[in-house]
Amino acid sequence: METLPTTFSAEAYFQTQPPPPTIEQDVQSVRGFLKQQREHGKKVVLVTSGGTTVPLELNVVRFLDNFSAGTRGATSAEYFLKAGYAVIFMHRQFSLQPFSRHYSHSTNPFLDLLEIDDPPDGSTAPPSISVTSSKRDHLLGVLKSYKSVQKAGTMLTLTFVTINDYLWLLRAVSQELSVLGKDAMYYLAAAVSDFFLPRQKMSVHKIQSGKGSLHIEMDQVPKILKPMVAEWTRQGFVVSFKLETDDGILIPKAQAALERYGHSVVIANELHRRKFEVAFVYRTHDADPSAPRFAETWVRIDLEKDPEKEVEEDIVNELVRRHKQWLEM
Amino acid sequence: METLPTTFSAEAYFQTQPPPPTIEQDVQSVRGFLKQQREHGKKVVLVTSGGTTVPLELNVVRFLDNFSAGTRGATSAEYFLKAGYAVIFMHRQFSLQPFSRHYSHSTNPFLDLLEIDDPPDGSTAPPSISVTSSKRDHLLGVLKSYKSVQKAGTMLTLTFVTINDYLWLLRAVSQELSVLGKDAMYYLAAAVSDFFLPRQKMSVHKIQSGKGSLHIEMDQVPKILKPMVAEWTRQGFVVSFKLETDDGILIPKAQAALERYGHSVVIANELHRRKFEVAFVYRTHDADPSAPRFAETWVRIDLEKDPEKEVEEDIVNELVRRHKQWLEM
Repeated sequence: METLPTTFSAEAYFQTQPPPPTIEQDVQSVRGFLKQQREHGKKVVLVTSGGTTVPLELNVVRFLDNFSAGTRGATSAEYFLKAGYAVIFMHRQFSLQPFSRHYSHSTNPFLDLLEIDDPPDGSTAPPSISVTSSKRDHLLGVLKSYKSVQKAGTMLTLTFVTINDYLWLLRAVSQELSVLGKDAMYYLAAAVSDFFLPRQKMSVHKIQSGKGSLHIEMDQVPKILKPMVAEWTRQGFVVSFKLETDDGILIPKAQAALERYGHSVVIANELHRRKFEVAFVYRTHDADPSAPRFAETWVRIDLEKDPEKEVEEDIVNELVRRHKQWLEM
Repeated sequence: METLPTTFSAEAYFQTQPPPPTIEQDVQSVRGFLKQQREHGKKVVLVTSGGTTVPLELNVVRFLDNFSAGTRGATSAEYFLKAGYAVIFMHRQFSLQPFSRHYSHSTNPFLDLLEIDDPPDGSTAPPSISVTSSKRDHLLGVLKSYKSVQKAGTMLTLTFVTINDYLWLLRAVSQELSVLGKDAMYYLAAAVSDFFLPRQKMSVHKIQSGKGSLHIEMDQVPKILKPMVAEWTRQGFVVSFKLETDDGILIPKAQAALERYGHSVVIANELHRRKFEVAFVYRTHDADPSAPRFAETWVRIDLEKDPEKEVEEDIVNELVRRHKQWLEM
């Protein structure tokens, strides 16, 4: 067995960790999708969504996971489509998806929307199914948007589960998408693990209990934004997210990420306020070297006044505006 | 801070780990449900389903998880209902549920079942929604079963996320259900973590990366089947599951569990064959002390011959038969 590094550069990562089996097929579908979108002069956004897993076993039973239902990504994808972008929706298997997210099996099960209508007396026709009248308008709205996106072919869905799937897929999709240059946006809303277990260190079978406590030691995931910005995406408009539970470190950490990776915007959010308040953190372009080097703009919504409003609508509109401005620079 | 044990007995666990906030409300709903079922002379099965999480932080971002979509539990619950049992379906939030499981957002999205029918020319009526004809029969079947269970009030759904939610809820529900004595079955299909992180050892905020590798040390979850069989459920028919990836240890581990906990049946399954093959492992009642003390019966289905067949149908029928036999003993 070759010696493994203890900290992985992105390069070392891809040299030692095997690609997921579906990567070639995914690249082919991205290529076909992009060809079509370019013919229609579409801007394209890559939306990543949901958490990544870190399997502890090769025959995986246990894994480390990051909390994420995929609401941010699935909701934002809908608003990007509405704003005229084509969307590559790269999401964690079983996380929320655009359109169907409105009908979660737990909170708004679609079977509750449906009614069985028995045929009139004497008829031998089978019963028919209809939509409960109070739910019809909302469903019709969602269904129309869904069908029109399907018809226009403006959304491509890709799936990942593990951190390894995610990293390989992100690199491959970014490299393909880079042909669009500045017309491509990268909206990295997935909750990506900071740690991983190299395949070479995994246990083959399910780790047995009954042998005392469990010790896990994981390596750091390479800081993938660096090669992504510097090499893979070239001129793209790259938006990353920073989620913290400790307010005091939120903005400084967002600024540090911008400094280190040189991308376009960090959207900073605190775990418990992320549904109604986020900060756009970006570099200022002030010629005065004594002026602050970073600025932030807050996007806030008032859920008491307008409980149906989604903060992703304002986030996406603000990004679309900034992307446009930046294209015109 | 009081000193924590390094290995937890079930008793020590419940003395040191706080109950979930919804426990009282859940107990009330179980009590009401059981009252109703007893009035109708129903047998009741508790079905647990899906994986449990082990949060690493109090403001939880990262957690350890067990692989489980909840297929076994959700499917079995449907067959128990069909067999005339009332079902307490205690499942991991967002795992599969009876009936809606047929329409997973990923593999069979319900929006694809629906069509928009425009009104006739000249009409000002809004468009209506109908079910695609090729999908109507299957949906009608599922919908009928779902509505009839709702109408009969024979299923109660409870939700857990963490291992701590699960353990508290399992104890409370078992204690309530024990009033049914031998008429109660416990079908423990959830994939429960063997390890946990005591609340007192959790980090308050998100664990920061950038400080080298991640070390996690977890304690063993107490063997809950012991007090469950001996104290909480009294005479109930208790069925546990054993999932392994290593064939060689599957049956011995199932036998060891029966030996240790003294319950009714262990259903043993290997990870990659669990969709078509399981073993019922049980104690023999042979008076001859030299005879084997355990026996196993295999339940197998042939998915090539009958791809629509679900192994849970045979598992549940076999259990219903054994439960009946045992009630008559």
